[in-house]
Amino acid sequence: MSPRIQIDLNCDMGEGFGPYRVAKDEELLGYVTSANIACGFHAGDPRTMDTTVALAASRGVAIGAHVSYPDLVGFGRRHLQLSPLELITDVTYQIGALQAFCQRHGTRMSYIKAHGALYNDLAIDATLSKAMASAVLEYDPSLPVLTLAGSPSVEILGEAGVTTISEGFADRAYSSEGRLVSRTVPGSVVTDPAVVSARGLALASHQPINDIDGAPIIVDCQSICIHSDSPGALTLATAIRATLEDANVLVTSFR
Amino acid sequence: MSPRIQIDLNCDMGEGFGPYRVAKDEELLGYVTSANIACGFHAGDPRTMDTTVALAASRGVAIGAHVSYPDLVGFGRRHLQLSPLELITDVTYQIGALQAFCQRHGTRMSYIKAHGALYNDLAIDATLSKAMASAVLEYDPSLPVLTLAGSPSVEILGEAGVTTISEGFADRAYSSEGRLVSRTVPGSVVTDPAVVSARGLALASHQPINDIDGAPIIVDCQSICIHSDSPGALTLATAIRATLEDANVLVTSFR
Amino acid sequence: MSPRIQIDLNCDMGEGFGPYRVAKDEELLGYVTSANIACGFHAGDPRTMDTTVALAASRGVAIGAHVSYPDLVGFGRRHLQLSPLELITDVTYQIGALQAFCQRHGTRMSYIKAHGALYNDLAIDATLSKAMASAVLEYDPSLPVLTLAGSPSVEILGEAGVTTISEGFADRAYSSEGRLVSRTVPGSVVTDPAVVSARGLALASHQPINDIDGAPIIVDCQSICIHSDSPGALTLATAIRATLEDANVLVTSFR
Amino acid sequence: MSPRIQIDLNCDMGEGFGPYRVAKDEELLGYVTSANIACGFHAGDPRTMDTTVALAASRGVAIGAHVSYPDLVGFGRRHLQLSPLELITDVTYQIGALQAFCQRHGTRMSYIKAHGALYNDLAIDATLSKAMASAVLEYDPSLPVLTLAGSPSVEILGEAGVTTISEGFADRAYSSEGRLVSRTVPGSVVTDPAVVSARGLALASHQPINDIDGAPIIVDCQSICIHSDSPGALTLATAIRATLEDANVLVTSFR
Repeated sequence: MSPRIQIDLNCDMGEGFGPYRVAKDEELLGYVTSANIACGFHAGDPRTMDTTVALAASRGVAIGAHVSYPDLVGFGRRHLQLSPLELITDVTYQIGALQAFCQRHGTRMSYIKAHGALYNDLAIDATLSKAMASAVLEYDPSLPVLTLAGSPSVEILGEAGVTTISEGFADRAYSSEGRLVSRTVPGSVVTDPAVVSARGLALASHQPINDIDGAPIIVDCQSICIHSDSPGALTLATAIRATLEDANVLVTSFR
Repeated sequence: MSPRIQIDLNCDMGEGFGPYRVAKDEELLGYVTSANIACGFHAGDPRTMDTTVALAASRGVAIGAHVSYPDLVGFGRRHLQLSPLELITDVTYQIGALQAFCQRHGTRMSYIKAHGALYNDLAIDATLSKAMASAVLEYDPSLPVLTLAGSPSVEILGEAGVTTISEGFADRAYSSEGRLVSRTVPGSVVTDPAVVSARGLALASHQPINDIDGAPIIVDCQSICIHSDSPGALTLATAIRATLEDANVLVTSFR
Repeated sequence: MSPRIQIDLNCDMGEGFGPYRVAKDEELLGYVTSANIACGFHAGDPRTMDTTVALAASRGVAIGAHVSYPDLVGFGRRHLQLSPLELITDVTYQIGALQAFCQRHGTRMSYIKAHGALYNDLAIDATLSKAMASAVLEYDPSLPVLTLAGSPSVEILGEAGVTTISEGFADRAYSSEGRLVSRTVPGSVVTDPAVVSARGLALASHQPINDIDGAPIIVDCQSICIHSDSPGALTLATAIRATLEDANVLVTSFR
Repeated sequence: MSPRIQIDLNCDMGEGFGPYRVAKDEELLGYVTSANIACGFHAGDPRTMDTTVALAASRGVAIGAHVSYPDLVGFGRRHLQLSPLELITDVTYQIGALQAFCQRHGTRMSYIKAHGALYNDLAIDATLSKAMASAVLEYDPSLPVLTLAGSPSVEILGEAGVTTISEGFADRAYSSEGRLVSRTVPGSVVTDPAVVSARGLALASHQPINDIDGAPIIVDCQSICIHSDSPGALTLATAIRATLEDANVLVTSFR
């Protein structure tokens, strides 16, 4: 008997700021197994971080530091040219701040994931990947980094000695080379919960999904991203989780 | 033979920001035994924190988190009305960020000290002292807090279970009740290095100093503050350290 | 025949920030006659300001600078101790920024209103009122300041030569001395649209309303505040506007 | 008799923040004719802006808005990817804030200059130049923009209807194509006051200077930049001003 297939579902959390709230964090925590928690650079003030860490800890959801370029007004979605030392120190600061809230709530951080523009830049920029590796290795070499499946960052971080977790997207189209198709391209975002769930199950099972042209492609991933800020986030999370569990996939954190 | 008298000399460090630098941190590290390092709320960006922590660690100087109200433009010198939860979470965030830089440089944080307006408010406000105690106890109960000698905070923090280190000022006048005299009062700031050094030796030796009216007063303290941002900071630090060592006082961190 | 009674309805607008939105600004603009637009210190980034000014201008709604303490994470709701020069320069900066967006959209600012903690502090603190007066007089002496009806600020600003517009609250209880009752007191906030509308009509007509103890009190005001961030804001705005117009009150800006 | 040659000397000013100061603004104001004043996005808080505008106004020095990417910790020296609307609104906000301080001190803004990374990006990026043109034209079409002599921005801004002032650098080496040589290249920065002054006189007189390879090149400019933050800024400013005046060049603002 082959071992049971397992997959992690990760989701952005704690992306409010001051009086602002953006997502149904509490409800989503019932369906995901890893929470990428904003650390104050693109969103997330100390109160929001405190509340979100406490909630995730109480639900047994793994906590990740969702590190970003320092760009609150741009929500970390704009490219900012950082030197390696700037990236290392900005990441160190954010990791430490989040870890303090974990410590306060009797838990600890399980991984790191870059947010927004930094996520995209890191996936393909070797200099940034090496800087991220330095930040992680000098802080805690046991911390894995969640990064884009099939991207150069997987190899670069790995060669530097960092554990990587590859992330797939059930609601985004892939090119024939396994790259995410830009959101500006028609058909790049999948919204039908049934289709997204089926793609999620295929990703978890290491089965091929259709690329943007309809050809089969395998995306090798250990975690699937659930977007928290889309209107139907909760519906999608519910559907994908149910589909996975019906297929006897073990939905669990990679930690 | 009585045991050798010992005293700690603490100094604010890493109070630059971005391109700005304010004090001769590197030189001052040769004379002090504890460095209160800014954590980004009143000063201190991730690069400045990284450099300052590395310097202090390499010199064997104890590292403290110099936590502040969130007020970069006001340098943390303006009173801001915070709820207990706001103080707890702001302090937790700052402590964690600094600890990450300590971890990166193979060392750890030894204490916490409030900065500026928060230091003054904390000394006399029981609600703030209790909130600070919560922040410390829930993060790491072994961390001491450096606070104003003779102030209510010493008792409140202590009753809550926090270790306190009492701080005296060799260059500031005290009232007959042992309170610091406001800087706006003539004679409240002592600038003559010889006088400051003599007062420092008296403080370290638990001998009386003159209060603002010339009457003897004993300030019970385990650490003496060296102000880093005054023009003569280095001269003063040199003088006080020499005076203490000439008198066979052991100048060492309390950690 | 006596002249027709007139009243202004003002409302906070543009209180989003970056990706965050808080109120139904566009719908509310159909009912109010003055828009207090956030200037970046408690809320409102340049894009939000641009959009909100353009909307208000296109609807013919008067534009006011909603100036605040610099406290984005606290949404300007926390007291911050500012010197007169700090208040003057912070206000000048915000007024200028908003005026630029007005100029860009072919209109101009009509008034100034303080936000949150600054509004409350200004109402009763003579030093702050005098500083606000300096800011206004040195920038543009023709700009009126919208301030709390019956508060000391009305007199102080007036004596300094600033035009004031007194503001009443239809959804808040008043003490027998005409002060707003703290929101923490039961009965301090009125939520029934019919009651609020009736109180609004009384305020506009210079008729007495009941104070918190049920005794009649007259609140002399030229503008009524519609809170934009309460869940029923739009319902309340619709009700109060209809009630006023049914009673033949002219709902119009004071400009 | 030919008309007297004239040139403007511009210098960055007001680049402190909160408690920090970086340059000898007051002394430099005795030698320059245009002051590029920071508007809060890379440096310059409301107090610094107020003081700097007052000083420049009292000395009769023309005031320019030194607009930047929003990046205080990076001092505006890092590239940030902005959309045209983001640039337009960020520039509008900064211009307005500075104009308010001008109005408060009885003067007005005379021009706009981009700072740091935005200056460099704007010089060569047509999309940014067009966005800057929109910002200026919709705020005040009479405001000129100070931009890099010989760069594409001169043409793009001009075609859009914006008046441009071309800026030359007496202390920087030019390539044979008239581009500034990167500071990382040996010989790219000239520090000898005599050489800088001679180059300044040549620039003002529309005479050739030597490019980095020693070949003659003419840089067509109406203003020369004096860097304020270099250690010898004051010496250089004194020398270049004296050289120009000795040669009977009229040193005056372009306004």
